[in-house]
Amino acid sequence: MNRFSCPAPLPQRETVVMGHGSGGVLSAELLREVILPAFSNPLLDRMEDQAIFESPGRRLAFTTDSFVVKPLFFPGGDIGSLAVHGTVNDLAMGGAEPRYLSVSLILEEGLAISDLRRIVRSMGAAARACGAAIVTGDTKVVERGSGDGVFINTAGIGVARDGARMSASAARPGDAVIVSGPLGDHGVAILTQREGLELESAVESDSAPLHTLVRDMLDVTTEIHCLRDPTRGGLASTLNEIAGQSGVGIVLEEGSIRVRDGVRGACELLGLDPLYVANEGKLAAVVPAELADRVVEAMRAHPLGREAAVVGAVVDRDRGRVLMRTAYGTTRVVGMLAGDQLPRIC
Amino acid sequence: MNRFSCPAPLPQRETVVMGHGSGGVLSAELLREVILPAFSNPLLDRMEDQAIFESPGRRLAFTTDSFVVKPLFFPGGDIGSLAVHGTVNDLAMGGAEPRYLSVSLILEEGLAISDLRRIVRSMGAAARACGAAIVTGDTKVVERGSGDGVFINTAGIGVARDGARMSASAARPGDAVIVSGPLGDHGVAILTQREGLELESAVESDSAPLHTLVRDMLDVTTEIHCLRDPTRGGLASTLNEIAGQSGVGIVLEEGSIRVRDGVRGACELLGLDPLYVANEGKLAAVVPAELADRVVEAMRAHPLGREAAVVGAVVDRDRGRVLMRTAYGTTRVVGMLAGDQLPRIC
Repeated sequence: MNRFSCPAPLPQRETVVMGHGSGGVLSAELLREVILPAFSNPLLDRMEDQAIFESPGRRLAFTTDSFVVKPLFFPGGDIGSLAVHGTVNDLAMGGAEPRYLSVSLILEEGLAISDLRRIVRSMGAAARACGAAIVTGDTKVVERGSGDGVFINTAGIGVARDGARMSASAARPGDAVIVSGPLGDHGVAILTQREGLELESAVESDSAPLHTLVRDMLDVTTEIHCLRDPTRGGLASTLNEIAGQSGVGIVLEEGSIRVRDGVRGACELLGLDPLYVANEGKLAAVVPAELADRVVEAMRAHPLGREAAVVGAVVDRDRGRVLMRTAYGTTRVVGMLAGDQLPRIC
Repeated sequence: MNRFSCPAPLPQRETVVMGHGSGGVLSAELLREVILPAFSNPLLDRMEDQAIFESPGRRLAFTTDSFVVKPLFFPGGDIGSLAVHGTVNDLAMGGAEPRYLSVSLILEEGLAISDLRRIVRSMGAAARACGAAIVTGDTKVVERGSGDGVFINTAGIGVARDGARMSASAARPGDAVIVSGPLGDHGVAILTQREGLELESAVESDSAPLHTLVRDMLDVTTEIHCLRDPTRGGLASTLNEIAGQSGVGIVLEEGSIRVRDGVRGACELLGLDPLYVANEGKLAAVVPAELADRVVEAMRAHPLGREAAVVGAVVDRDRGRVLMRTAYGTTRVVGMLAGDQLPRIC
């Protein structure tokens, strides 16, 4: 037994130090002991600078998102699962099923290793649940006060379904607007956690992967015109983008838009409009009116679409604008989010 | 003329504000006026949540890197061009040519829009020079003091060359170790800029895309065993990874390793070993000895490989270790980087 054949265990650090981003011994230790075990798969375990694989399909979807949500852990999820779901959903909104994910971590010096471990385990579990493999990654460390715990980037490659041609530019007058469920859960969950509010009914983030819901919708028809997940800026901003890019008007029926009691109560307390609050497990779809009922029916058969409903229609006037017909029969303009209602929501 | 048909120009902001990350009006303004013009191409200009394209090849490479380099601008480059080159090079080290890039920005409140504009223009130019398109992206904003100017993530998809099977596990005793040029330029350029040092001979970063150099090498032979770019941790850490993963020893010849005078001088001044200093436009290759001369010859015909040379050999002893034979005929162990020599170098 000598010092080469039986090295002492490396000192167990409890927090992230600058050396974890050095590319040297400590980087290798963090990778081996914390990150790789959470994500392990044959492509990643090769530990090359890139993953190489046979192309998973003829048409591919590619997307990226960085996540800076505060706090890192919240009711219904954490920054890790959110980072996986967010990128999976950006693929899904193109009609694609996720296959390969990349994960890049920007850690702040002083982050508890136990928190990092919890986050990467959550990412690994979320990816596996989506049938996606985390195949390549990167870790950087910044000094205390130059970051905020952990920022995560996930990029993703998916296989796009043949025939699906959704675009925010493709809404046509006469189309129906469908939303997959009640609005505002994610934003309210984050905000109440951040502010330490006690609500009568607890609100959890709706963070969830939507690719199987989209699959079920596309099984009904590939004639879905637009598909978007109303995250930052909420449903109002998403529909304004569609109205603007398609050059159409959208009229919403207030009575059709669902908001949970707990979310509604929190929004009233905080002075927020649920139409502008972020969702992380909902989608908005624009489909030809004659297909709407069948699409909604398929959505309601899926656990993430049980409360799907037609909430409005695309019209050939008020181009570029979204209007809301209220319960009282009046109509108001629903503009795009101005300012920063809820910073660092995702 | 009314207020709808002739809107006043949006107020021109000089710095990034939290609302630029809201997903609302300000996010759209930043995208339209600063980011899209720098990257413009048909896939990106669709402004969907994901890019969809025909698979560019049969075998794909996929990689990601986040960049937190400080300062943002340095001799020979900036965080933007570095972010493109870094990801292109991670693809190139797998024998792949870059096709599609994603860009995700984490901006700190207060960042000058003029700096952001300069950075994204630099990214756009670097990507175009590599024949790659930036096709999807994301922007987040964090409060002043929760970030540091801008952090950039780039992920990339490349087309891997048939027959190329490089791996850090594939070095074999008898192989030659080639390095494409002098070491340490990037790390020293960053450090002297950061510390405000005045050197006798100015040192510029070697940041550059290596995919065409790799293409020329693979034109000679696809029997290249290992290919790595010695970035963080320098050549020493890269070769230690190869020695460890391949279960071989590596013996370097000190006299064969080139270091520019300016870099050598700065390293002496700062107490650094150039073997541990980051490079961003160099590669290390392990090739069968009998092919080494032809590979070096091809490299020297390329602008980024003019000073390529064989610097060592793979041996069947000292497994997992890198040794250096000095000019005086002695031998010393070259370990992996311990601690954090140069934080935030990339």
